[in-house]
Amino acid sequence: MTLVNLQCRLTARPTGLPKASDWDFVEEPAPEPGEGEFRVRVEFLSIDPAMRSWMNAGRSYVPPVEIGEVMRAGGIGRVIDSRHPDYAVGEAVYGTFGVQRYALSDGRGATRVDTTLASAPVHLGVLGIGGLTAYFGLLDVGRPEPGQTVVVSGAAGSVGSIAGQIARIKGCRVVGIAGGPDKCQWLVDELGFDAAIDYKAGDVRNQLRQHAPDRIDVFFDNVGGEILDQALGRLARGARIVICGAVSQYNAVGAPSGPSNYMQLLVARASMTGFVVFDYADRYAEGASQLARWLQSGELRSREDVVHGDVDQFPDVLLRLFDGTNIGKLVLALEFEH
Amino acid sequence: MTLVNLQCRLTARPTGLPKASDWDFVEEPAPEPGEGEFRVRVEFLSIDPAMRSWMNAGRSYVPPVEIGEVMRAGGIGRVIDSRHPDYAVGEAVYGTFGVQRYALSDGRGATRVDTTLASAPVHLGVLGIGGLTAYFGLLDVGRPEPGQTVVVSGAAGSVGSIAGQIARIKGCRVVGIAGGPDKCQWLVDELGFDAAIDYKAGDVRNQLRQHAPDRIDVFFDNVGGEILDQALGRLARGARIVICGAVSQYNAVGAPSGPSNYMQLLVARASMTGFVVFDYADRYAEGASQLARWLQSGELRSREDVVHGDVDQFPDVLLRLFDGTNIGKLVLALEFEH
Repeated sequence: MTLVNLQCRLTARPTGLPKASDWDFVEEPAPEPGEGEFRVRVEFLSIDPAMRSWMNAGRSYVPPVEIGEVMRAGGIGRVIDSRHPDYAVGEAVYGTFGVQRYALSDGRGATRVDTTLASAPVHLGVLGIGGLTAYFGLLDVGRPEPGQTVVVSGAAGSVGSIAGQIARIKGCRVVGIAGGPDKCQWLVDELGFDAAIDYKAGDVRNQLRQHAPDRIDVFFDNVGGEILDQALGRLARGARIVICGAVSQYNAVGAPSGPSNYMQLLVARASMTGFVVFDYADRYAEGASQLARWLQSGELRSREDVVHGDVDQFPDVLLRLFDGTNIGKLVLALEFEH
Repeated sequence: MTLVNLQCRLTARPTGLPKASDWDFVEEPAPEPGEGEFRVRVEFLSIDPAMRSWMNAGRSYVPPVEIGEVMRAGGIGRVIDSRHPDYAVGEAVYGTFGVQRYALSDGRGATRVDTTLASAPVHLGVLGIGGLTAYFGLLDVGRPEPGQTVVVSGAAGSVGSIAGQIARIKGCRVVGIAGGPDKCQWLVDELGFDAAIDYKAGDVRNQLRQHAPDRIDVFFDNVGGEILDQALGRLARGARIVICGAVSQYNAVGAPSGPSNYMQLLVARASMTGFVVFDYADRYAEGASQLARWLQSGELRSREDVVHGDVDQFPDVLLRLFDGTNIGKLVLALEFEH
């Protein structure tokens, strides 16, 4: 029986938010694995803000997705055929499988996933790239000390919610910035943030003054734009800004907005540092095992926002990252006839 | 005989470039020193871009000059009366004497200057705050390694010209960015920069590509704005940006322009760090003696742009920092009847 693959391909570089005409859906027979390859049925796709940046041309930390290519995505799949010595049919595997039903792999960049320890969405979230990004970005780049004030933007997202909790575990005062009262309440009531700032309620500046009375020692930024500027205006001496992402700018038309307050780096003798989690690949095991211990002890809570649908749902699910509706790790659980 | 003091006072916070109505000149008898004080006749005033930032309200690394106050300035004066045990009449002293003919000091923040070793303008330049800013900013914050590419903006200014030369002494490839062919020629022919980019000739981006083929490891920024953005677009992996100043923004009306390319910090795993030389006060002696040795050996060249005039010339001299005419350390040598 020939399996029918459905792929989501990029057909145009979006201006602003991606729209229907930027995508194409192609049905074709799923390729058979060659010698040394295995084939997976993709079950869960990780949906991340960074995907939007991969759609743009130009130099970035990974090459852009080319026009006509299957949209890049990390995912967890089940091995359904194998001509690879290390992977057996039935195993769950993480890899950059792309937005499609079936994918081939020669094992490079793939890792086996134990779904009896944690669900696949948790493996894509806290125990995956998102959790590791929070872990290394906060601890290695931000270097918070107990008692210091850590402010996290995009705090209800998959990375921000973990970064803030790690800061709490490390004994910091943690303030999250998120959009809307529900997210803010979740941060404080469920995740143990000391305070949350609803940027949609206005006047982030005054809210920062209120909730970061000793100023900001570490600002973990997923958002950029106006919120980065407000944080710059509230830095403590020697503060560290961790540049993790800039979700407010990914859909900007024209040049993104730079932080006009950047000279506060001088006033505060502060630094702003960009990082990419891939540089920590040789320490992933350390990070993942610590995150797993915190999850198990209950010190760290995870939340997944799982949407069920086929590959053709991907464009709509992606937009949930930019319209403010997503809380926690966004995952597309692929459902189709097979 | 009563000495007549002439003071330049700030009367309004400028919008854009300072204009005549932002200043007031007051003649009054010079005050007599009290017990523990000495009086100097101010002979040389250091004229610096940072002065413009001191004229603005708001939080900065020093308090603003208040309306009605004598404009703040570092200078070198000659002791003409002394009731201070450590300072004798005739000695040359550096201090924050302000833009006026005569000043009192109780010795705090003052240091004796040996004008037989170097002229007063050199003490205000290479051997003063400017040279120390270049020294600690480049070496401690920028941390260049031999063979790396160091790019300096405002390279023909008092700080930039020294920072670039120190980078050359440390075995780096040095590229200066300055305005106009004369400055660029001076950087290459006289100061030994490997290349100079004339930003007024346009297309800084292509010039950076040509002169920094291996990208930028250290960017020492005195300018900000468009030039900072172009440098961000050309960073090498792990680059360090030293935020020393932002002369392109000091006279901005409204919010200054932030670096819209700042997400290149993430792409390059780079940092942007602000610093203030005052934090290195306990190491000034180390820096100054190293700078003096380099001067003496001829490895480091100094250039002073000395304008002669009375206190009332200060507003015009200050504008030379912003109209592109100044090369090297700008000094107002006070000349008046006494």
